[in-house]
Amino acid sequence: MKKVRVGVWGFGAMGKGIVNMLLSKKGCEIVSVVSRQESLGGKSIFEVVPELNKNNHPNVFFEPDPLKAFPKGQVDIVILSTVSFTKASFPQIKLLLENGINVISTAEEMAYPFAGEPELAKEIDELAKKNGVSVLGTGINPGMVLDLLILTLTGACESVDSIKALRVNDLSPFGTSVMEGQGVGLREEDFIEGVKSGTVVGHVGFDESINLVAKGLGWSAPKIEQTREPIISNVYRETKYAKVPAGYVAGCRHCGCGYIEGEAKISMEHPQQILPHMENVDTGDYIHIKGIPNIDMAIKPEIPGGIGTIAMCVNMIPHVINARPGLKTLLDLPIPRAIMGDMSEMIER
Amino acid sequence: MKKVRVGVWGFGAMGKGIVNMLLSKKGCEIVSVVSRQESLGGKSIFEVVPELNKNNHPNVFFEPDPLKAFPKGQVDIVILSTVSFTKASFPQIKLLLENGINVISTAEEMAYPFAGEPELAKEIDELAKKNGVSVLGTGINPGMVLDLLILTLTGACESVDSIKALRVNDLSPFGTSVMEGQGVGLREEDFIEGVKSGTVVGHVGFDESINLVAKGLGWSAPKIEQTREPIISNVYRETKYAKVPAGYVAGCRHCGCGYIEGEAKISMEHPQQILPHMENVDTGDYIHIKGIPNIDMAIKPEIPGGIGTIAMCVNMIPHVINARPGLKTLLDLPIPRAIMGDMSEMIER
Repeated sequence: MKKVRVGVWGFGAMGKGIVNMLLSKKGCEIVSVVSRQESLGGKSIFEVVPELNKNNHPNVFFEPDPLKAFPKGQVDIVILSTVSFTKASFPQIKLLLENGINVISTAEEMAYPFAGEPELAKEIDELAKKNGVSVLGTGINPGMVLDLLILTLTGACESVDSIKALRVNDLSPFGTSVMEGQGVGLREEDFIEGVKSGTVVGHVGFDESINLVAKGLGWSAPKIEQTREPIISNVYRETKYAKVPAGYVAGCRHCGCGYIEGEAKISMEHPQQILPHMENVDTGDYIHIKGIPNIDMAIKPEIPGGIGTIAMCVNMIPHVINARPGLKTLLDLPIPRAIMGDMSEMIER
Repeated sequence: MKKVRVGVWGFGAMGKGIVNMLLSKKGCEIVSVVSRQESLGGKSIFEVVPELNKNNHPNVFFEPDPLKAFPKGQVDIVILSTVSFTKASFPQIKLLLENGINVISTAEEMAYPFAGEPELAKEIDELAKKNGVSVLGTGINPGMVLDLLILTLTGACESVDSIKALRVNDLSPFGTSVMEGQGVGLREEDFIEGVKSGTVVGHVGFDESINLVAKGLGWSAPKIEQTREPIISNVYRETKYAKVPAGYVAGCRHCGCGYIEGEAKISMEHPQQILPHMENVDTGDYIHIKGIPNIDMAIKPEIPGGIGTIAMCVNMIPHVINARPGLKTLLDLPIPRAIMGDMSEMIER
């Protein structure tokens, strides 16, 4: 079987993890890596990141120019992990589609771009169809815990009245930009100001997850309300990237609620903070479905966000290549699952 | 939109539940019901079962002859809930496929018929393709808890080392034939004898679930071992259909293990008994994945088996109609999910 030829665009924590995971898989090969760090151009990824396990993989080089990195006819799919928003990733997606390359994007908004950017979504769908390829946005969240997993559980329900989901996680492994986006280390009043001015964003993905769930169940378009509250620490907390004195903000309790015809049907809560266990907060993923039957699910501790996002992107590769052309969501494709065999054998030829 | 025209073949607990659920859905209608009780022929289902909620549904009649019940071109899909085994349901499936009708089967073996009946599976696949329709076997288990849900969770895994799953349920609602198949009420020695002679069967579906998981992950074909042990009650337990003195059998602890290249990779335990809470046993569904990352999931109480099976069958209708022709498994189709909108709008035309 011909190996699946994968390109990687973006070499932050996600891109690096995706490369590392791809290197461990059979039946695929990495064609090239695009990084915005121009100084890497022409260098081998294995020299720049010695901890990558090369195995018998051919050498792979950084190439700053995506047109050179991913030549037409030489790449089956590119995993794009550069930004969070559809608008910002649109030129990159467009370039790939016009080159006849399938795309998996980690941009949170791309999990359901019809919510935030309906016109761009339509354009992406048309571009994909015109070029005979497919596009999917996925990750751990949106992409799994607060949408796909909820929907899968409702498969065992005769009917669903309402859904509550909660994801309690630990931000400690993350770096400075995540700390800023969640308001970690701020005073309460600065957090509130940051929410107003848009510097404290919390979680990107409630619009997408709530819309995916509503769409998946066949409910009408939800009206979505979101709140962002500071999680004030009672103790001193410190990680590599953040110091939080008692009385300061350890994270952001971000909630989203989808109203269907005026009723609160889809409620989600996603408190993200550093070192939650210091105040005896257990991390976990929780889904509560009210319906026939009720279903109460818990995953403790939570599925880790970084690994989960990396895994979802790589594991969806065969499904996206096999899909009928167009802009896809996780509602359109077979269930994600770990690939422990030869990836090329999953491709329908 | 044209309504989805559904036939129901089999009118036991599952068939009745499927009819009841279909009546609550928008965008579909029941064409006819086939029951083996010939005396029902020609009678209205609403007269025979007054508790069915007719809403505005046209009258539906029992018709003992499936060829008359499901005329060519007048039925989109039939849900077949007559037996547990592929071989026994094959003539029924064949008749439907040759009539150009899609099929969803509750037969446990049909969830992965390649395991138990590879030649029949091939024949079903060919018949389906020849007639341009699709066949799927599903239910709660096999179909959801011990296969689909496991696989979906591995979607967030970079790699999987091994899987343990446990489904602890309560048999109390079930009738005489289930009690016999699980050995409820027997003396320990009679249970052991019954396992040998084949009257105590335990759960039908480990071969299918373990094969589905292995196939889904891309592991090689598993060697499967199964054990059936009596659950001896320490107290007197009584339901409508069974009386179990202390010291007698309250149910069957059925375990299955799939070995991949000699290693125990997929272990499943399914203790089924009446009134487990009388000895402080909590019911629930549990999945433990060892891998990167580990994932530990619990659903408490367990997803109820009857409703779950009914729901899975009805919820998969649009996906089976939309599928490319052939014999399908849950690995091939989009995720199941509750249908709260108009079913006909989910059909791709």
